[in-house]
Order: sequence, then structure tokens, then C-alpha cells
Amino acid sequence: MLGNSFGRAFRVTACGESYGGALLTICDGVPAGLPLTKEDIQEDLDRRRPGQTEIDSPRKETDQVEIVAGMRDGRTTGAPVGLVIHNVDTEAIHVQQYRDVKELMRPGHAEYTYFAKYGKFTDWCGAGRASGRETAGRVAAGGVAKKILDLLGIEVVGYVKELAGISVTKEMTFEEIRDNRFSNQAHCPDPEAAEKMIKRTIEIRDEGDTCGGIIELIARNVPPGLGEPVFDKLSADIAKGLMSVPSVKGVEIGAGFAAVKMKGSECNDIPYLEDGKIKYRTNNSGGLDGGISNGDDIVVRLAIKPTSTISKDQTTVNFVKMEETILSAITRRDATICPRAVPVAEAMMAIAICDHLILWKGLDTITALLRDH
Amino acid sequence: MLGNSFGRAFRVTACGESYGGALLTICDGVPAGLPLTKEDIQEDLDRRRPGQTEIDSPRKETDQVEIVAGMRDGRTTGAPVGLVIHNVDTEAIHVQQYRDVKELMRPGHAEYTYFAKYGKFTDWCGAGRASGRETAGRVAAGGVAKKILDLLGIEVVGYVKELAGISVTKEMTFEEIRDNRFSNQAHCPDPEAAEKMIKRTIEIRDEGDTCGGIIELIARNVPPGLGEPVFDKLSADIAKGLMSVPSVKGVEIGAGFAAVKMKGSECNDIPYLEDGKIKYRTNNSGGLDGGISNGDDIVVRLAIKPTSTISKDQTTVNFVKMEETILSAITRRDATICPRAVPVAEAMMAIAICDHLILWKGLDTITALLRDH
Amino acid sequence: MLGNSFGRAFRVTACGESYGGALLTICDGVPAGLPLTKEDIQEDLDRRRPGQTEIDSPRKETDQVEIVAGMRDGRTTGAPVGLVIHNVDTEAIHVQQYRDVKELMRPGHAEYTYFAKYGKFTDWCGAGRASGRETAGRVAAGGVAKKILDLLGIEVVGYVKELAGISVTKEMTFEEIRDNRFSNQAHCPDPEAAEKMIKRTIEIRDEGDTCGGIIELIARNVPPGLGEPVFDKLSADIAKGLMSVPSVKGVEIGAGFAAVKMKGSECNDIPYLEDGKIKYRTNNSGGLDGGISNGDDIVVRLAIKPTSTISKDQTTVNFVKMEETILSAITRRDATICPRAVPVAEAMMAIAICDHLILWKGLDTITALLRDH
Amino acid sequence: MLGNSFGRAFRVTACGESYGGALLTICDGVPAGLPLTKEDIQEDLDRRRPGQTEIDSPRKETDQVEIVAGMRDGRTTGAPVGLVIHNVDTEAIHVQQYRDVKELMRPGHAEYTYFAKYGKFTDWCGAGRASGRETAGRVAAGGVAKKILDLLGIEVVGYVKELAGISVTKEMTFEEIRDNRFSNQAHCPDPEAAEKMIKRTIEIRDEGDTCGGIIELIARNVPPGLGEPVFDKLSADIAKGLMSVPSVKGVEIGAGFAAVKMKGSECNDIPYLEDGKIKYRTNNSGGLDGGISNGDDIVVRLAIKPTSTISKDQTTVNFVKMEETILSAITRRDATICPRAVPVAEAMMAIAICDHLILWKGLDTITALLRDH
Repeated sequence: MLGNSFGRAFRVTACGESYGGALLTICDGVPAGLPLTKEDIQEDLDRRRPGQTEIDSPRKETDQVEIVAGMRDGRTTGAPVGLVIHNVDTEAIHVQQYRDVKELMRPGHAEYTYFAKYGKFTDWCGAGRASGRETAGRVAAGGVAKKILDLLGIEVVGYVKELAGISVTKEMTFEEIRDNRFSNQAHCPDPEAAEKMIKRTIEIRDEGDTCGGIIELIARNVPPGLGEPVFDKLSADIAKGLMSVPSVKGVEIGAGFAAVKMKGSECNDIPYLEDGKIKYRTNNSGGLDGGISNGDDIVVRLAIKPTSTISKDQTTVNFVKMEETILSAITRRDATICPRAVPVAEAMMAIAICDHLILWKGLDTITALLRDH
Repeated sequence: MLGNSFGRAFRVTACGESYGGALLTICDGVPAGLPLTKEDIQEDLDRRRPGQTEIDSPRKETDQVEIVAGMRDGRTTGAPVGLVIHNVDTEAIHVQQYRDVKELMRPGHAEYTYFAKYGKFTDWCGAGRASGRETAGRVAAGGVAKKILDLLGIEVVGYVKELAGISVTKEMTFEEIRDNRFSNQAHCPDPEAAEKMIKRTIEIRDEGDTCGGIIELIARNVPPGLGEPVFDKLSADIAKGLMSVPSVKGVEIGAGFAAVKMKGSECNDIPYLEDGKIKYRTNNSGGLDGGISNGDDIVVRLAIKPTSTISKDQTTVNFVKMEETILSAITRRDATICPRAVPVAEAMMAIAICDHLILWKGLDTITALLRDH
Repeated sequence: MLGNSFGRAFRVTACGESYGGALLTICDGVPAGLPLTKEDIQEDLDRRRPGQTEIDSPRKETDQVEIVAGMRDGRTTGAPVGLVIHNVDTEAIHVQQYRDVKELMRPGHAEYTYFAKYGKFTDWCGAGRASGRETAGRVAAGGVAKKILDLLGIEVVGYVKELAGISVTKEMTFEEIRDNRFSNQAHCPDPEAAEKMIKRTIEIRDEGDTCGGIIELIARNVPPGLGEPVFDKLSADIAKGLMSVPSVKGVEIGAGFAAVKMKGSECNDIPYLEDGKIKYRTNNSGGLDGGISNGDDIVVRLAIKPTSTISKDQTTVNFVKMEETILSAITRRDATICPRAVPVAEAMMAIAICDHLILWKGLDTITALLRDH
Repeated sequence: MLGNSFGRAFRVTACGESYGGALLTICDGVPAGLPLTKEDIQEDLDRRRPGQTEIDSPRKETDQVEIVAGMRDGRTTGAPVGLVIHNVDTEAIHVQQYRDVKELMRPGHAEYTYFAKYGKFTDWCGAGRASGRETAGRVAAGGVAKKILDLLGIEVVGYVKELAGISVTKEMTFEEIRDNRFSNQAHCPDPEAAEKMIKRTIEIRDEGDTCGGIIELIARNVPPGLGEPVFDKLSADIAKGLMSVPSVKGVEIGAGFAAVKMKGSECNDIPYLEDGKIKYRTNNSGGLDGGISNGDDIVVRLAIKPTSTISKDQTTVNFVKMEETILSAITRRDATICPRAVPVAEAMMAIAICDHLILWKGLDTITALLRDH
């Protein structure tokens, strides 16, 4: 209830912080019989891992995941899957840097809100639990969710659609997006746009500044009927999952904010039949009617703000002494988190869909897909 | 779990559909001692009620609420508050109209997704549980939540910021917005913009079409520290609550999608001290840092699509016979739902904040505000 | 979260108190297509209704249930089912009687614990929400749960096994118990024991006193595999559901407390095969191994204390003035609640099993039983 | 939702099985500022640890706990506390022994119910998740809960009241029970009874058999007002928590099943004043009126069945081949689990009370006890 669990039928519970010992993630609601290896999970973790490109943080983490529970002879058992990722880059020198500024509001960060909540014993080190570090746990759980979705042929694909003011304009098929999105540092399937994005991000970085962007997510082959009425719509749970990701300031589905300018006759997706199946002329709904999947692609976009840590001095407040002061420029930082956020966003979307899938179909039904073969 | 409850410490559970007997709403987690009258709730219900203006549905509902549980001598008792709203406008003629098209996909509506989920026994009448009718229950619960927030001086104010392509451009204070927002049919505090909005909406209506808009919500005086870490951020729960409202396709907080174009040095809200209190030069965060309230106004905007029911013929699919067909124009409809959606959006925001308030402070603490006086 | 909901996949949320306007009950997680009538629910309500025998309370309630939501053309729709029971016997004279003693601890009752919790605004009238009156809502929801269990041939049967010191000793088949348990005022399927029970209860009543007893519950045809590991065992949820019923002070499963005296070789239920099916030589497990159903009858017993309201003066404490005083004898009371508690206990067991059934199998699977026929 | 979490405001989520890599336990809802060390938790773990006495299992586990998250400078931070216990005694020889009998119903065990649920991929090794091994995770979480309860002076004390047919008859004060309960292998504070218990248990063990017993739990200084109305009574949550412990077949509160034989005038606990405080002449309620704490000691007893694993051959069924067969005697086993179950039962009671405490008072209130000092 208090923040560190997500999902109901497929339920992820996590702990761990920026400079703690380890990140633990427990996935409950995993069907028995799923073949699962460290590698299934590691691939996405590696896409999120810092210290790999010119535009992300130089923090060195290996982000190696161990599966310590819920397995027997290479398959899941129905018992919750336990995942451990040890923190590596937690040297005293970094801890001390944070200790020095622990009473300062770092603009855009959550030190003050955590202090307002937990008081002086809050974890001031590297943003503690509020650090993006926790998203490694999300990605690990997302790896499990994706393996389950695989059983039904459901794919969740994300990519950077806009970065540092540069947008993808090229038309691409789902397959092109899926197959090319991790082919460059920007995690953008359009190589020309990616090149411009990276160039512009490096310029901004070199000014001591940071930038944000837009990630688009597409879920294909979601069967119609997922999502619960009224409050627990699939749309609502996806929105919650994505808005919970650090730095996300907006979520839109289908036409999203552009729907505001449309008339009803423009916005309505007209259905038709093709090969005996229901198709839609447009996808302004983003695959969700009444918050429930309609069989079309689920399409969601999220707005990611520029990284709050910048390499410029900022005036600020010491919230213990209640006096104004200066927060010095910080060099160890991400120029942008957008590319690293792609597997995180995919993970949250995969978890939300997996949760609704198991909630509605029943774990028994999903287990039966494996049990009887 | 299955969709019809929202909140954890202040928990709303509801039932009722477009053409059922009544809407029941149970509010659990209400402190004992709260003076509560039918009128406290009725005011917002009247703002949502159809059949009052040129631009909403002519459906006639009285939407009178009864409080049937949780009260003694004019005050709440700590027991859950039970609210009943009887449906009135449910004549056989309207039921028959829906029965005639119950196998057709009404573009933009949820008949097919409900059919995919529940099968032939789903409620086909007037969109059943997926109808906007259920939002009367949300508004009723929102009335209770607002009374609780009152105890701490927290105000939640919403208004139409854009409608039918017309935006509010006038600068207004919080008080101007609060005091004038219900002074016209558009529920827009800027009378000039409102006049244009209504005029344009009527034009669109007369074309047989519909339009959407943007609602902005502002919550003032939320104490810093509300919101739980990681998954149950206040930002995430607000996003979920609002995305669950029928016709909402996007939610953004603070600078929202505009943050994408900013640099870190532009987006960061610089704190300073004024009269010994922490203030911020800007509010790009929308009052939420790390998903937790920072003491500034919480500012959220939601995108509302144009009403799906239009007065034009549309090609569509009969999902039982699996054949293409025509859905005829429908005249009984809202030209836009934006003005009526303002109290609904306020309700969801109030419920989400109230839930986090009670979750964190404890019902005992809130009760004590009343108990000891 | 705060007390007034039970179940997760089949979820009952209720409000209403002893002298409020009405009891509302919302059942979420009901499959679409279930034929449901007022009469399906009324039968059990009539078995719980007061004012019908020599040994229960003379309070006159009609306990007529209305179904106001979740139905279309005589079948459920997948939307939550809304149930309303209006309170009838709430005259001012009774309210005044409670107002007169509202500061007194009534021994065995919950006035003081509610006052400690909610303060002076707690509902002092007829025990408010703590009154057994709320159990009418449980029984109504139990009626819906039983209809769902019917689809799988699952039966839940309860009866009074001991009352006023008189125990059933006769061996009876499941069918004899089921068919005869409501044939007398004691709700005991053994007519000889029942006669003695009633006689002894009347003697105790005439002394101004009250008595308790034991109810045994049997659930037949529960498929093996229901119950979740570790914390949400079916055994644990049944125990919670039953312990939440007013006046219950103990719950035991299978051999229960008698297992304490056995050796492992005596307690273990030895399985064997009969007609190709697994059977057990004994049922000390009560049909639950590792907290999960094993296919045998689930057998549970609950201890019900004597009614706390007695027709004798009792010394007590005024918890507002903090002084000792006398609580006078009260005549309007149940000599025992055991017979009336049978449908309540059945309801809780049915709800717990139904919840686990839907949780595990999925609402989709249960809906399909109806959808496709 | 699916079984591996307990509590709502203080929430324990766990994974790990008999022969897996590690047991992970995440405690959410821990106030910031709590001084917490490995030793605080280790003490109870050592009391549960096998391989220490003549009457428990010879399995060798060190059960060393590591705290890997939620701490900074020796205090909790408000972030969830992550606990890891590595399994040690998981040699191939033991795994093989279980592999050999993986298709057999072990009478009294959960292999078949897990197989019925999860199918052939269930974890057959040493009872998997259904093994008592998971209770180490409960005890670890209980250690955290007890530290929180300490802040309010609440103590939870359990002891073996009956074992192998031998009951404690000596009158003892709370302090005597508390201080002496771990002074012998039986975990019974009465040394004479303990000696007889151990002697009799060894005799039964030497017959190849096993025995059960009764544990009594006492919680002192619980403030009045804890517990939520109707379904989430403190009594109900304690019952659920305890019934979820492996081998527990019954739970009773206060007079429990003995209340059945009492009259109302005997069972009612008469309140009186002593030094201006409310006291009760008796404690048949077990400190819970209407399921809410009344300020008196909370007293609960649980029935523990004899260990299912015995050193005698048993006829049984191969549930894959569906044929009758013999399960051979097993020597590596607990003669009784009662003494080892004492810290487990204490843990569940402490967690349930801690959960209700934080739920009602708010984590903010509990945090403030530490924050402001």
C-alpha cells in the first residue's frame, strides 16, 4: 500500500536505493512452467545501465541480476520470483559528496519533499529511494512480464520519438521500430533523427545543461477485453505506471492532447472488416475504448523532463537552516535520461498489461498454457 | 480489485449504470465528526447534471443524492458514508433505442470492448457501466472528499481552459478562477473566452458534430510530503484517477509536455525564501517533486476528446453478425462534455489527495481535528 | 482498506448501521450472465431476520432486498451488483433508549472501543456499525456468491452443532444436514438435539441470561487448488472472514484443537484411490493442505459467545465521566444468536471460496461458463 | 494479491522456498529514524532456527540475515527495508531424495494441492514454497515490527502452553512468561511442564512419530482503538495471520471455544476503575471488543498439528501415475514444530498489530515519534 508495489494479479514489490546494498524485486503472480533465465532479464537491464554512452551518467554499475527464488530446473514454479541486483558504484567519495549537500534543495529533485515527509532520517544519499537507480528493479520485473506476454504473442516496444527538440518524422512500420530502436545511443529507430538527437544533446551537455524528450510505446496483439471498468481501466493503470517513472510529467494515449482540437467525426475510429476481423480506419483511441483494449495497437506517449542535475551553479535553499545558498555545478550526471528510460517505460507498460491479463484470464488459465505442454 | 473502487485510505466504491435503478457510492475512511449535509454534495452534482444548457445532453436527471449511512445527528460517525442517487430518465423508449443497436460498434464508444470482455450479457443500454452516467457517483464521493480537505484548508479548483479550439489566454489569479469558473455554461472563468467557446460549440453542434477541450486543475494548500515513493506517487495516483474519467486521453502535470522542449536550467524550479517560507520562482513541477507534494500549487491538465456520439451517420460493424453496416445519427447527446467534466475532474483530484492525506497522516489524526473540539 | 470490504477478485463492500437509513452492499467481480433474482438472496436473509422465534430478538425488520445495479433483462452484466436493504424498525423510542446510555460501557459490546477510536461522534445508537445488523449485508452478498458457486456445483452448508451446552451427537450425512438444518428454530439438522437446545435456551433466557454455541460449516465440491500460498491461504481467508463476524471467538479447521492431542500418524489423512479418484481415509485436514483445497470437504467450526446484552443489571463504567455506574437489564435482545448466525457464517465461507475461485480461475473463465451457452 | 504479502500499512512481501537460493523479505511502511541492526532481527531467527535441540529437525541452516535496503547511518529511512537470508543446507543429496518422491502425496503435506494448482512445474523439493522454511522470512519481518511496537511500549510474547499432551497449569505473571519462555527447548516458561513436554516428545519421536501443541500469545499495552470495523477487525487480521502459519489448525481469542459453554453474565467482562483507568474483572474478550482493542491484554491461542513428516511407512497415492504406493519413513524431521513456531507466531501477531497501528495512526505520526527527537 505504501508505495513500493505495483500491480494486483501480477504484482511487483521492490526495495533498494541509490547507494544501498542491493535492489530486491519480488514478482508475485508468475505462472508455473515459464522457462526463465538471467539472460532474459539482463538484456533490458543492459539497455538501461549507465556509463555506456556519451550522453548518460558515467556512474559504473554492472547491474547483474540474480534469480534467487521461484525457480526449479530452469522453470518458474508458481512461487514468487526473487531478483537481486547488487549496487557496485557506492564508494565513500560519492557518499561524502551527497553528505555535504544533504540540507540543500537540489532544484527539480525530491530531497525536500522526502525531508518534509520522513524528516532528518530520510536517505539523503544520491536521492535515495527517489533516485532513478530504483528503475533497474522495474526493468528486471519488466523482463519477467515480457516473458509472460510472449506466451500470448504480445509485444511491447518503446523508442525515443523526440529528444532535445528533434522529432522523428519518418514513417516507420512496427517491425522497423522494434528491430532498430536499440541500434544507436538515442534509442531511436530512425538513424537520421538519432544522429541529430545525439549531436544536439552533446551540445546541450557541453553547455552544462540537460534535455528531455518524448518516448512512444506500442503494445501489439493485446487481446480485446483487457482492462476493468470505471477506476481500474487499463488506460488508467498504464497512466499510473508511467507517471510513476522518475522525470515523467505527462502521459497521453492515442491522439492524446491532439484529440482536443478534433471534432467527434474526426476523432472517432471507424471500424471495418478485413479477412473477417475487426480493423479501424484510424487509431485515435490508442487501442483503448472505455479504457479497455479493443484489439488495435495500444499507443502511449510520455513526456520526460530534462535531467534536473546540471553542471551550472543554482541558487537554492538550505531547508534545515532555512537560508538561501548556492548549489554548485555537478558533473556526474545524465545529459538526458530519455534513451535509458525506454526499457523502463516498456517495463511499466508490460507490467500493467500483464497484470490485467492475469487478473482477467486468471493465473490458472495462463499457467495452463504451460502446464499442459 | 475489479475496477469499481478507488483510493486506499479514503476509498470510494461505486456501482450503477446508465439505465439501472440507482447509483450507489460508499465512501470508506471518512473521519468521525464531519458535519455533512446533502447540500454539501448536491452543489457539485448540479454542476455535472445534464439537461441544463445549450451544449449538453437533454437527458433529464434530477441527480438528487441521499445519505443513507454513516451519519448520526448531522455528523459522520467513522462508519462508511453511503450515498444513493436514483436514475430517473430511464423510460422504455430510450431503452428500446439502445436495444435496436446493441450489436453495433458505436465509434468511440465501449460497446465492443465490453462485449469482448463480458459477452452477450453485457449491459448494452446507454453504454451501461461505461456511460458517463457513473461520474455522478464520482462527484458525490468528491463532495465528501472536499469536505475533508476543507479541514486542512486544501482547495481543489478546476475549469475549462480550452474548448472547441478556443483557449483561455487571460492571466487570472487563483481566486478569480475559483470564484468565476461556474458563472457560465462553459465553466470557464474568463467570460470573453467562455462566450467564444460556447458560440463555437454551438456551431459545431449544429453541424451535427462535437468537440473536446482541456481542463486545468489546481490544488492549493496541499502540505508538503503527500505521496508515496516509487509506484504510489501522488502524481501517479492523480494521473490514474483522471485517466479513468471517460473521454480523457491525456494528463500532464506542471509544464507537462512543454517540459520536453526545455533545458534543465529552464525547467528546474528555483526555490527561495519569503517570510521564512519556501517559495519557487516557477512551477514547472506542478507542485510535485519526486511525485510528492512540495507545498506549491498542484497543477494538472487533462485532454478531453470530442463526444463520441454525433448526429451524423457513421459506417460501422455489427460485431455479432460480423458485417459492416450504418449507425444512424443520434440527436440526444452532449455537444461537448467539458463543462460537465469539471466537477468530475475536481472530484478525482480531491479523492486522490484526500486518500494520500489520510494514508500518510492516519485517519486518527484527521479524526482528532474534529474529535477534540 | 479501512474495514468495509472483503475479498479481492469477488469483492464485497458494505455500509449501514443498526439505526441508519439503509444497508448498501456492492458486489464487484460478478460474472456477466448470471440469472439473479431478489428471491435468490431473500431466502437466506429470511433465515437471518430477527423477530421470528422465541429465542431471538423481537426487533421487527422486513429485510427486503432490492437489486438496483448490475442487472439487465434478469441477468448480471459484469458490472457490480448493488443491493439495498432499508432499515424499518428505527423508531425514536429505541434511539432514545440508546441515547440515555451512550456514555456507558455495555459489557461485551464495542461502545468503548469505538469511542476510543472515533471519539464522541461515534454512532452510539444500537451499537452503530458494530451491531449485528450489518450482517444482513453479508448475507445478501453471500446470496450472490452462492449463485456463482452453484455454477461449479459447490455447496456451502452450515448448522448449529452445539447450543446452550447441548451438542449434536447423531451421525448425519451431508445431505441430511443440508436438507434439515433450517427445519427448526435452532437451525440444527438433528431434531432431537434441536428440541433440547431450544428448551435449554428458553430456560436461560427466562433467567435473564443468554447462551452461545458452535456452528459447523461444510463446503462440498470445492475443486483442488484453491487458495494462494503463504499468507493468502484459503484457510487463512476463511478464518479471517469468520472471525470478523460479531461474537465469534474461535475458528478451527478439520480436527482443529483436537489435532493438538494427536500423533502425526493419527492426524495425517491417508489418501487412496476410489473409482480413479483420490479420496482420504480421514479428514483431519478439513479439506485444506498447505492452506489450499485438496478436493475433500472443507470443514470449519466457529465458537460463538453468548449474546452480550442480558436482562440483568450489570456494574459498569461511564467512559466520559469516568465513574462507575449500573447498566440496567435490557429485555429487547437475542437469547442466542447462533441460529441466526448460520446464514451469516455460510455467507462468509461462500464469499471466501468464491473470491479464491475467481482469483485463481479468472473472471473471464467463470464468465465463459455463462457467456457461451 | 497472490499470496505473498501481508499487511496494508505495514506490509511484508516475501519470496523464497525450501531449497531455493535465498529468502527475500521486503518490509514497506517502516517509519524513518528507527535504529535497526542485524542483531535486532537475528535473535528471533535463532529461536526459530533448526538443528539446535533434540526435538527439532537436524537441517543445518545458519539463518543469518542481511539488511540490504532502507537504511542510512544505522537508521531506517522510510524506504522499504530489504532483508536477505541465504539458504545453506541445500545439497544435491537432499534434492535427490525429494526428486525420488515428487509424484507421491506425502500425507499431511501440500504436494498434491500445489500440483493441482501449478501442475508438473510446481516446486517438489522439500515442500518448496509450502515448506516451513518460509517462516524464517516471517520472523525477520516480525523483528522489524517488534522494533516499531517498542516505540509505543507494546510487547508481544508467545510460549508453548501445551505440547505432546502436557499442559502448563502453573499460574504465571506476564513478566514470568516473558522472561522465561526461551529458557528451555520447549519454549515454555514453566520449567516443570517443559521438562515433561520434552521427555514426552522424545518418547513420541523415538516411536517414529510426532506431536503437536498449543501456543498462547499475549500482546500487552496495545492502545484501545486499534482494528477496523466489520471485515478488517484486528481480531480477524490476527486470525488470518496465524491461520496462515504452516500446521496451524485453529485460532481462538480470549475465552475462545470455552465461551461457548458460558452464559452471557459469565462471559461479559465487567469494567471498573482503578487509579482512574478502565480495567476489566475478567478477560474473556481477549482484549478485543467488536474486534477492536480495548486496552486489556490481547490473548490468542493457536492449535498446531503434529508434524506431518513421520518416521513410519505410510500408504499413499502417486498422483501422476494415479496408483497407490508406499511412502517410506523419513528420519530428517521435527519431532514437533511447536517450540520453533513460537517466534513465528509472535511475528505474525506483531505484524498484524503493527499494521493496524500504522494504518490508524498514520506513518507520519509514528515517524514523528522518531523525527522530532
